[in-house]
Amino acid sequence: MAHELDPRLIERLARFALEEDRAFDDVTTLATVDAGLTGHATFVAREAGVLAGLPVAEACFRLIDDRCRFEPHRTDGEKFGASEPLAVVTGPVRALLQAERVALNFLQRLSGTATLTRAFVDAVAGTQALILDTRKTTPGLRDLEKYAVRCGGGANHRRDLASMAMIKDNHREAIAREGRSLVEAAAAIRQRSPGVAIEIEIDHIAQLEAALEARPEWILLDNMSITDIALAVQQTAGRARLEASGGVRLENVRAIAETGVDAISVGALTHSARALDISLELKF
Amino acid sequence: MAHELDPRLIERLARFALEEDRAFDDVTTLATVDAGLTGHATFVAREAGVLAGLPVAEACFRLIDDRCRFEPHRTDGEKFGASEPLAVVTGPVRALLQAERVALNFLQRLSGTATLTRAFVDAVAGTQALILDTRKTTPGLRDLEKYAVRCGGGANHRRDLASMAMIKDNHREAIAREGRSLVEAAAAIRQRSPGVAIEIEIDHIAQLEAALEARPEWILLDNMSITDIALAVQQTAGRARLEASGGVRLENVRAIAETGVDAISVGALTHSARALDISLELKF
Amino acid sequence: MAHELDPRLIERLARFALEEDRAFDDVTTLATVDAGLTGHATFVAREAGVLAGLPVAEACFRLIDDRCRFEPHRTDGEKFGASEPLAVVTGPVRALLQAERVALNFLQRLSGTATLTRAFVDAVAGTQALILDTRKTTPGLRDLEKYAVRCGGGANHRRDLASMAMIKDNHREAIAREGRSLVEAAAAIRQRSPGVAIEIEIDHIAQLEAALEARPEWILLDNMSITDIALAVQQTAGRARLEASGGVRLENVRAIAETGVDAISVGALTHSARALDISLELKF
Amino acid sequence: MAHELDPRLIERLARFALEEDRAFDDVTTLATVDAGLTGHATFVAREAGVLAGLPVAEACFRLIDDRCRFEPHRTDGEKFGASEPLAVVTGPVRALLQAERVALNFLQRLSGTATLTRAFVDAVAGTQALILDTRKTTPGLRDLEKYAVRCGGGANHRRDLASMAMIKDNHREAIAREGRSLVEAAAAIRQRSPGVAIEIEIDHIAQLEAALEARPEWILLDNMSITDIALAVQQTAGRARLEASGGVRLENVRAIAETGVDAISVGALTHSARALDISLELKF
Amino acid sequence: MAHELDPRLIERLARFALEEDRAFDDVTTLATVDAGLTGHATFVAREAGVLAGLPVAEACFRLIDDRCRFEPHRTDGEKFGASEPLAVVTGPVRALLQAERVALNFLQRLSGTATLTRAFVDAVAGTQALILDTRKTTPGLRDLEKYAVRCGGGANHRRDLASMAMIKDNHREAIAREGRSLVEAAAAIRQRSPGVAIEIEIDHIAQLEAALEARPEWILLDNMSITDIALAVQQTAGRARLEASGGVRLENVRAIAETGVDAISVGALTHSARALDISLELKF
Amino acid sequence: MAHELDPRLIERLARFALEEDRAFDDVTTLATVDAGLTGHATFVAREAGVLAGLPVAEACFRLIDDRCRFEPHRTDGEKFGASEPLAVVTGPVRALLQAERVALNFLQRLSGTATLTRAFVDAVAGTQALILDTRKTTPGLRDLEKYAVRCGGGANHRRDLASMAMIKDNHREAIAREGRSLVEAAAAIRQRSPGVAIEIEIDHIAQLEAALEARPEWILLDNMSITDIALAVQQTAGRARLEASGGVRLENVRAIAETGVDAISVGALTHSARALDISLELKF
Repeated sequence: MAHELDPRLIERLARFALEEDRAFDDVTTLATVDAGLTGHATFVAREAGVLAGLPVAEACFRLIDDRCRFEPHRTDGEKFGASEPLAVVTGPVRALLQAERVALNFLQRLSGTATLTRAFVDAVAGTQALILDTRKTTPGLRDLEKYAVRCGGGANHRRDLASMAMIKDNHREAIAREGRSLVEAAAAIRQRSPGVAIEIEIDHIAQLEAALEARPEWILLDNMSITDIALAVQQTAGRARLEASGGVRLENVRAIAETGVDAISVGALTHSARALDISLELKF
Repeated sequence: MAHELDPRLIERLARFALEEDRAFDDVTTLATVDAGLTGHATFVAREAGVLAGLPVAEACFRLIDDRCRFEPHRTDGEKFGASEPLAVVTGPVRALLQAERVALNFLQRLSGTATLTRAFVDAVAGTQALILDTRKTTPGLRDLEKYAVRCGGGANHRRDLASMAMIKDNHREAIAREGRSLVEAAAAIRQRSPGVAIEIEIDHIAQLEAALEARPEWILLDNMSITDIALAVQQTAGRARLEASGGVRLENVRAIAETGVDAISVGALTHSARALDISLELKF
Repeated sequence: MAHELDPRLIERLARFALEEDRAFDDVTTLATVDAGLTGHATFVAREAGVLAGLPVAEACFRLIDDRCRFEPHRTDGEKFGASEPLAVVTGPVRALLQAERVALNFLQRLSGTATLTRAFVDAVAGTQALILDTRKTTPGLRDLEKYAVRCGGGANHRRDLASMAMIKDNHREAIAREGRSLVEAAAAIRQRSPGVAIEIEIDHIAQLEAALEARPEWILLDNMSITDIALAVQQTAGRARLEASGGVRLENVRAIAETGVDAISVGALTHSARALDISLELKF
Repeated sequence: MAHELDPRLIERLARFALEEDRAFDDVTTLATVDAGLTGHATFVAREAGVLAGLPVAEACFRLIDDRCRFEPHRTDGEKFGASEPLAVVTGPVRALLQAERVALNFLQRLSGTATLTRAFVDAVAGTQALILDTRKTTPGLRDLEKYAVRCGGGANHRRDLASMAMIKDNHREAIAREGRSLVEAAAAIRQRSPGVAIEIEIDHIAQLEAALEARPEWILLDNMSITDIALAVQQTAGRARLEASGGVRLENVRAIAETGVDAISVGALTHSARALDISLELKF
Repeated sequence: MAHELDPRLIERLARFALEEDRAFDDVTTLATVDAGLTGHATFVAREAGVLAGLPVAEACFRLIDDRCRFEPHRTDGEKFGASEPLAVVTGPVRALLQAERVALNFLQRLSGTATLTRAFVDAVAGTQALILDTRKTTPGLRDLEKYAVRCGGGANHRRDLASMAMIKDNHREAIAREGRSLVEAAAAIRQRSPGVAIEIEIDHIAQLEAALEARPEWILLDNMSITDIALAVQQTAGRARLEASGGVRLENVRAIAETGVDAISVGALTHSARALDISLELKF
Repeated sequence: MAHELDPRLIERLARFALEEDRAFDDVTTLATVDAGLTGHATFVAREAGVLAGLPVAEACFRLIDDRCRFEPHRTDGEKFGASEPLAVVTGPVRALLQAERVALNFLQRLSGTATLTRAFVDAVAGTQALILDTRKTTPGLRDLEKYAVRCGGGANHRRDLASMAMIKDNHREAIAREGRSLVEAAAAIRQRSPGVAIEIEIDHIAQLEAALEARPEWILLDNMSITDIALAVQQTAGRARLEASGGVRLENVRAIAETGVDAISVGALTHSARALDISLELKF
């Protein structure tokens, strides 16, 4: 399975993070480690998980010293168990030490998101529901985190405010204030941005029919009970695709999925995943 | 209490995140909300915590539309309870909707870190131990996250690889390989970067005396038992300052502090804090 | 009618263009015009058209000297006749001369696109067909040119490769090579990017039914005869929206629109509009 | 014939345009085309013209995927006929599809300028008149467009406001207001920027002698009749070089050239050239 | 006397230098100086000189804290004596301390160049010779340093390789290798860049006539004796302007100027001027 | 001896300087030198000195044309005599000419700093005193200049305001104003930035004991007589390290060193070093 990631983005982010850490001016390593000393460093999982971010980690070492050689044992998107070696870097010990922390910062964080995503995806296995991310991402890392979600088997909700229309409750109120209907609002969107899919958020089953009249591609069922979600699926009968959100946890995600919704979005995938425990073991 | 943050940094990060979200091209809002409609939006805490990031949130709205007025009810560094209003933004409804998600992404994440930090700081209250962050920060957000740690009452460990020397186990091994002693290594660092403080990491009490001979400003006791930490404090007798790290949790942090160490560093403050639940309630 | 444009984008582009022209180092003006001399300059249309780009022109003068005052007589999106004054700038004569060419470069080019768009929009007046732009834009100016299209009454086709899926003939061939059907390809897209609308390109009426089976939001009828376009409209019967493209000219666009298609896309709006003749007349 | 172009500029512009198009996140291609599929794509001229921009097109493919191989059949600056193959790219089909539009946007636009330039250059063949561009270029693409003019056999007028002095009518008025003469103004320029050539614009033959007194390197004859241009050539007698501008069209350019002027500048070369029709034909 | 300097350039350079110094994160000042404490700081000359760089110094304080007020006592380009106050900044003491070093770094360096330039300009007073800078500037500061030269009464030689042609000895050799004459080389330059002035370097009086045949705007007399320079002036008789360079010192510059050359260029103005001694005296 | 320098920094600075010089658009070279002509250029010292900046010079040529080959004869940090060849570049003559000036600008300036540093270092040979730079560096070139100081055998004082605390006289006054002691101020710094070393500036021997009470890592003896410096060394007796500054010249530096201070800082190393005379001799 290939998980595409823009090589320019990888390089830009890795470089920025190395400069943020002033890795090129590591006062300890440059004063204490001989320039000629070489070694190899192994990324080792300290707990089971799903890998994401290996190409970024690779770039960190290469940007510090292009003599570093990176040999992956796993690929992004693969599951691994505790204690498994994930990749080996060979090169000057100086470079291995200078890039270590930044490489781990990327790898642990992205693998944390991939691992959490995979848990949700596994929990709904056999249903038709996709697990989606949200726009609740770390500022500056959106493309990377959405990639990590794909590594975990999830799918990407809209990337940004321009790539899909979402009529939320506040929009509905503004629309009502101006004396317009949802149908008119959807038409205004299609007039301005005809190629963009429209999703309408509802938080009560009673709003469903009015929303469907606007013929959106998607309807978002926000914070609704499982009973109401099931009712919405039945009532919609394929006239739009349905997404459930709000209060989704590993404990209840399968029940939500079994209502027949098309997708379930989970903010925690990106805003609250904890870093996975991965270490770098150096030998020389 | 003032918590300093470079205004240029705030503006650069806010702008970058808004562009990442293509907030200026919000296809929904621009098509459905009248340009003349104004309103006000209140940041409301859905759980208790410590505030961090308000100036960044403010910048998000101002950069979208400089007619937005931001009125803080709390200041960064203050504690708040569930349901408390934190700040109110007044301005065009379009701008309120366009900046909402990005502003929340910053505020929830940074307040998450400040809140977790405060929990650790409160847990060691009355001891002399500082709670320190690490370099395990989100790539691109280091200065912001270290600021959030200060908002939570913590102190900042070295900002980057150039601002303090830290001789870790891998450095020790490299030094040994080259037939040099710790004393010589420390001298080499002082020769190259005389103004930089030196910390030496040890993971066994038996290494303490050799480390002290190099006259470091700090010694890092990594993953040592509370008994050994206490022993190290006694044996060091003020010859260096002592930092404990490794496996630090809210449950054991007070016991570590009571050994008399000067500081305790906690990677989780920045790498695994979950986003705090804060909402933006819009009225117009 | 308001035409939204990101103020940051305006400023960035204006600044870049001024630097490209080294306007701040105008060797003629700085040596020959007294710093204290003030005047006013009027943008005058030398031919009728539709205005686009006034905020960018305004920014050019303001960035050179923030004492420049800009008074618009027309708004972006308005029609104007030959010889009409469009806006007046008052300020130091030095600044007026330094920014003149760059301001005109933006204004003439964008008004050219808006004017050409308006001609197509007027030609299909009374039909339901939208006039759409394409991705055939000037590198670096896409957002500005798509804005100019809106100023001319057109609508924006997908902004970029990430904001809508378009299965073109080459994709179809690749899909076939891999032994997959259009239905499977569309499903793969929806699996990866569920919120993105899908358009399928066909160039022969015989391909229509197979395309409709994949349930795309849009079908693109490329280079088809008016008879076939009309047939496609009839056969589709609302199952997807239809866009016509290829060989669209002012002479035939109304006939295409009258077939009942939802949209007609015209690459020339951005790739071949000529600059509108606008001059800046300086008085002091 | 070699046409120099800064390789860094090429790379920066190509990368920027690819990012503007979000080519690295092509939701269609990444979901429907297998990563392992390779093919080759041929740039084919659909009309005769002069080539410009091939190195930029090459960079677009290489930046998407450095396995792309680019084999030119023509060089920038060469004429080609309709249906001729211009270059072939071989590589992963994904990359060919992701870079296609951006590469064409550069190539069509720049070849359009080169082709229009060549038409003017051919029209004055046998005279001594150079065909010059102006500063009426696309913001952000000035160096590229001036390169395209050279590809078409034209020469470059001043690149920017710092690289040559041009005393226009507005400067003359400001100079007069301050009670200074043209001679004094020219001296002021030479005092400040001694190495810069000076051109004085006149729009009436009666202004010629006064202009010549200032000993400019160039005189610009703006919007003057062919009779007056001829008179100016005779009267100047080599004391300055002469440039004609204003209302220059393919129909009258030869007559202007035959007056003996040294150069003729044509704004349309860059502000109103239409994109040349070039297609990319993919085989795999 | 006004000395123009692009305000954007000032801001960009000041901001960059402040970030380079991490002035916003001044660990001493933020921990020890109260945020509410205000004061004023006076720039005081410790030796006589010519001022250059005041707007950059002003920007440094304003960028740190926009409450800083800057009151100049002198203007760029003015002479001042030892102990004279040059400007006063009023504002928060924190900001005064954070920006101090960076503001002085600019002001001392640029005033050093202006002062040295003025010494050369004064030395040739009464002759017609301009004192010119060279391209031997500090990387990144060329525009600022060339401005400082103007502040000192000097004039600017070509800004960069694109703004004037200079045929040096190496070019002559390359031209000869290709079997071309100087006349042909000059024609090739004029063909490619017709608006650019041409200078030809000679280092022996015997080369003068051949150089004059190419009709350059300038001839550079490099490292020639005063006798030969005088001979060149006589022989040239106004057919080109003459610049002398090489081994120019305060001791011999007047003798060179009295030969009648039009300009004398001095690399030391920018590559070897020492920083002027200026201090910032803080009161609060 | 290896002198580390971030390869990314080198490339960024070299590229910026080449663009500043518009080296890619060298109107002379591109018009007069054949693209196929190759040659070699030798950097030759015209005076004795210490080398610094060779990797930057190398990058200048490589960035213009990656066919340039760079063969160093000396390494950064080495001493050389007058007339010695330092390095040879082989490649297209065009590239050699285009990059020449920028490469020399870096090399002459940095070698100037290294050479001056070495003179001070040699003057104190046999004592324990380090020669330190200051923050009086050229805006934008700090890392490069501090590297040149290391090449000359010097050591680097604090890089920026965040990497070490320095309590200067103005801080002392602010602290006194707020009714705090030096001990309290030092504690406040350690509370906020525990890993940062503290230096306290005194300008009178009478302040020494109060300063020592705060237990700083360093004390700066500013502008004190040699007698007082010697007294301070004796009185401090190893309780802090001592730095002398102010009025340090080659004539008096050894006397200062012989007092037993640990370090002597010299602003002139970076703010007033003159460019070393190095030429590039081209053969082809």
